[in-house]
Amino acid sequence: AYSNYQTVNIIGYPFSIGQPIDGVHLGPDAMREYGIVQRIKRDAGRKVRDLGNILLDNSRKGEQFGIVKDPATVSAASKLLSEKIQSVLEDDSLPITIGGDHSLAIGSIHGHTARIDDLCVLWIDTHADINTGESTVTGNMHGMPLSILMKELEKKRIPGFEWAKPCMTAKDIAYIGLRDVDPEEFKYIEDIGIHMATMADIDHHGMGSVFERALDTINPRRDRPLFVTWDIDVFDPSEAPSTGTAVRGGLTLREGLHLAEQIAKSGLLVGFDLVEVNPKIGSQEDVKKTMDTACFIIEALLGKTRRANVYQKR
Amino acid sequence: AYSNYQTVNIIGYPFSIGQPIDGVHLGPDAMREYGIVQRIKRDAGRKVRDLGNILLDNSRKGEQFGIVKDPATVSAASKLLSEKIQSVLEDDSLPITIGGDHSLAIGSIHGHTARIDDLCVLWIDTHADINTGESTVTGNMHGMPLSILMKELEKKRIPGFEWAKPCMTAKDIAYIGLRDVDPEEFKYIEDIGIHMATMADIDHHGMGSVFERALDTINPRRDRPLFVTWDIDVFDPSEAPSTGTAVRGGLTLREGLHLAEQIAKSGLLVGFDLVEVNPKIGSQEDVKKTMDTACFIIEALLGKTRRANVYQKR
Amino acid sequence: AYSNYQTVNIIGYPFSIGQPIDGVHLGPDAMREYGIVQRIKRDAGRKVRDLGNILLDNSRKGEQFGIVKDPATVSAASKLLSEKIQSVLEDDSLPITIGGDHSLAIGSIHGHTARIDDLCVLWIDTHADINTGESTVTGNMHGMPLSILMKELEKKRIPGFEWAKPCMTAKDIAYIGLRDVDPEEFKYIEDIGIHMATMADIDHHGMGSVFERALDTINPRRDRPLFVTWDIDVFDPSEAPSTGTAVRGGLTLREGLHLAEQIAKSGLLVGFDLVEVNPKIGSQEDVKKTMDTACFIIEALLGKTRRANVYQKR
Ligand SMILES: [Mn+2]
Ligand SMILES: [Mn+2]
Ligand SMILES: [Mn+2]
Ligand SMILES: [Mn+2]
Ligand SMILES: [Mn+2]
Ligand SMILES: [Mn+2]
Repeated sequence: AYSNYQTVNIIGYPFSIGQPIDGVHLGPDAMREYGIVQRIKRDAGRKVRDLGNILLDNSRKGEQFGIVKDPATVSAASKLLSEKIQSVLEDDSLPITIGGDHSLAIGSIHGHTARIDDLCVLWIDTHADINTGESTVTGNMHGMPLSILMKELEKKRIPGFEWAKPCMTAKDIAYIGLRDVDPEEFKYIEDIGIHMATMADIDHHGMGSVFERALDTINPRRDRPLFVTWDIDVFDPSEAPSTGTAVRGGLTLREGLHLAEQIAKSGLLVGFDLVEVNPKIGSQEDVKKTMDTACFIIEALLGKTRRANVYQKR
Repeated sequence: AYSNYQTVNIIGYPFSIGQPIDGVHLGPDAMREYGIVQRIKRDAGRKVRDLGNILLDNSRKGEQFGIVKDPATVSAASKLLSEKIQSVLEDDSLPITIGGDHSLAIGSIHGHTARIDDLCVLWIDTHADINTGESTVTGNMHGMPLSILMKELEKKRIPGFEWAKPCMTAKDIAYIGLRDVDPEEFKYIEDIGIHMATMADIDHHGMGSVFERALDTINPRRDRPLFVTWDIDVFDPSEAPSTGTAVRGGLTLREGLHLAEQIAKSGLLVGFDLVEVNPKIGSQEDVKKTMDTACFIIEALLGKTRRANVYQKR
Repeated sequence: AYSNYQTVNIIGYPFSIGQPIDGVHLGPDAMREYGIVQRIKRDAGRKVRDLGNILLDNSRKGEQFGIVKDPATVSAASKLLSEKIQSVLEDDSLPITIGGDHSLAIGSIHGHTARIDDLCVLWIDTHADINTGESTVTGNMHGMPLSILMKELEKKRIPGFEWAKPCMTAKDIAYIGLRDVDPEEFKYIEDIGIHMATMADIDHHGMGSVFERALDTINPRRDRPLFVTWDIDVFDPSEAPSTGTAVRGGLTLREGLHLAEQIAKSGLLVGFDLVEVNPKIGSQEDVKKTMDTACFIIEALLGKTRRANVYQKR
């Protein structure tokens, strides 16, 4: 079923409370203005529906759990996204969530697991985003979504996410693109046993091989539905400068396209999100380049290839 | 014979009527001013002769065939180039044509096939340049030269090129670097069966392998003389910004050098052109970088390697 | 022993007489101001000691041997470095020398061979730096250090370096990253038989394979202590613009990290230098980027990986 959807549903998630820098909540509308909906419609050969933005409380309450900032606000927003995702999936459509900060993955992944059995996930990011209330040094929840979702970390969960029962285990998820992992995060990853492909692995094996190895680990028979959460900061700052936690030494646009084209070709994709585009960071040219990179990736995930300007039939 | 030429002949083709942007006709003189002739002479270890520019009618008549713009002007200019190429080859010399827009390939390839038996061609470009009068959406002839040259497309030829009998078949030509191919072009390529190595293939296999596969297809015994037509827009805009139809996700300078060095090493090259450098696009620094990239490639095609600043003996 | 050191010793070598451009002597202090010492201390998990700058005569005397400029000044400075290195190694510590121009490698390599048996060297550079008094066309000694060190070139040594008996043979050294090699240098390299991995080799085989091949040649049983001399100009100008002899088509930061991480992982490293950062070249942003690149490499050579922000235990 998941390989035969007809309609693409775009959900905007204008949220920035998971991190400290102003502007990332403007991502969805900036992407629309830049033309993402038209770009998809032009070539996609399927229906595209823009569901608009989820109405989110985007103000800081100053509430804290330990040093974790505004967990209740993050939780409430994520819950709305999970519900929206579930209603889109009911419809047998493909949801795309455009962020907003990466705390939204709590909602998007929870929503998918609620409707789709045996989901597996590719987490494409510079960062591991698996800090807990104990390990975080910044207190920003966009660095913590996986600690809310992982069953193995249930005991370390911060309170306030009772609506979202942990829904992932290590065998369900693989990282691609890591290069800035906190020591405590690394311990969690090693303890739990999550497959991680760092930039060093991509340097050594190439993206083609890294993708195959990741699927071999979490989806060896290529029969599990696949969700992708794509943090734009996985790209090198020269490809996507307008993001809050840019780190040198990231993916080239071509590596991103190579990865996205392989994901599309797998026929397994049931939904994805694209997060952390911040149109308030950098020059106008920087913002344009970042959004262009995001559009390239979204189009490729939907089946566009470089063999021809048409989307691949599945 | 073709592996033992002595003299390099530089032909300028100051022509822009095959596309709509002003400036590409200034490419040859800008390259000379930048020092291409000196750069070749310095290290080439062979005679270098600058034949100057072909005198071309570079004014728009507004003539159209369907939406195809100024085919008669393009045809007349290409015919002059074909004749010039033929006279250079008579001399057992190596012609290099510096464009000018890519419609010139009609003349350069026709001229080579007229003098050299069993020629094969590498078309190195972001674009497939194989639109016909039926498929073109822009009407620009720099996107159509292959439809004039291919025997398989003879019935779709626009009139006015009767001097240039179709001279290529699918087994004679391979693409390298494609990433922006119109759907109709893709159909022609698939129907005819031209070997295409896209940027996705380069991402997956690497340039070394992609080059070998291309030659395996069109030149399996490595005994056919080879012509190369190199559109500067195959490079990423960060390597060659000053060109009319730049597309992100292109070759790095290093991939271009790797390809050019392998071509030179094959000992098969009998001529080449380098097109679409437009010194009116971008900043002075952009133009300089683009011309520098072009010079690097021309030198490498002539045998310069990164092992030492000398040209390889053949 | 060399794989089990405790303390890192930073030596500044503020010297520019080996080349003509002002500013490279400011490299060590600019790197300190930029935070290299803190960056190492933060993650290194070992003692870090900043030994300050060696006090060097950094004024031009106008003395020449043939066209070679100021060899006596270069010799005197290198001798001081050799002595400093030797005293650090006595202490069973790891010396890092921050240049300064690449003529310093005379001192750093001589100092290491004086204290460590059976040393081998990776020379990571755009240039071969093996010109002799006969072959040099610039007369700059930063292009000549290897001709002073190689036993095979003893007869071509310029006078004034009697304190530094030639200490390397071809089997002790391999190049990585070459792409701008003078014809006479290439002859020396071929005659002597030094292993050279050019950028073309990296393009063809990838950095992982190139590193293994280099070690297979000079360190086949992986039991020889390894010294690394790293010229920042091996990087592409887009990664390290602020250096005196930048050449396009160099390493990406990621390739540099891949190489440095493999060197660290080998457990063989006994010392290294990082040279030719010139904080007077380019914009402030250029200088920052260049120093950031240098810091990334120094940290990776000391064991930091992209798997986690901690240094690898050995
Ligand atoms: Mn993230
Ligand atoms: Mn991130
Ligand atoms: Mn073209
Ligand atoms: Mn093109
Ligand atoms: Mn150098
Ligand atoms: Mn050097």
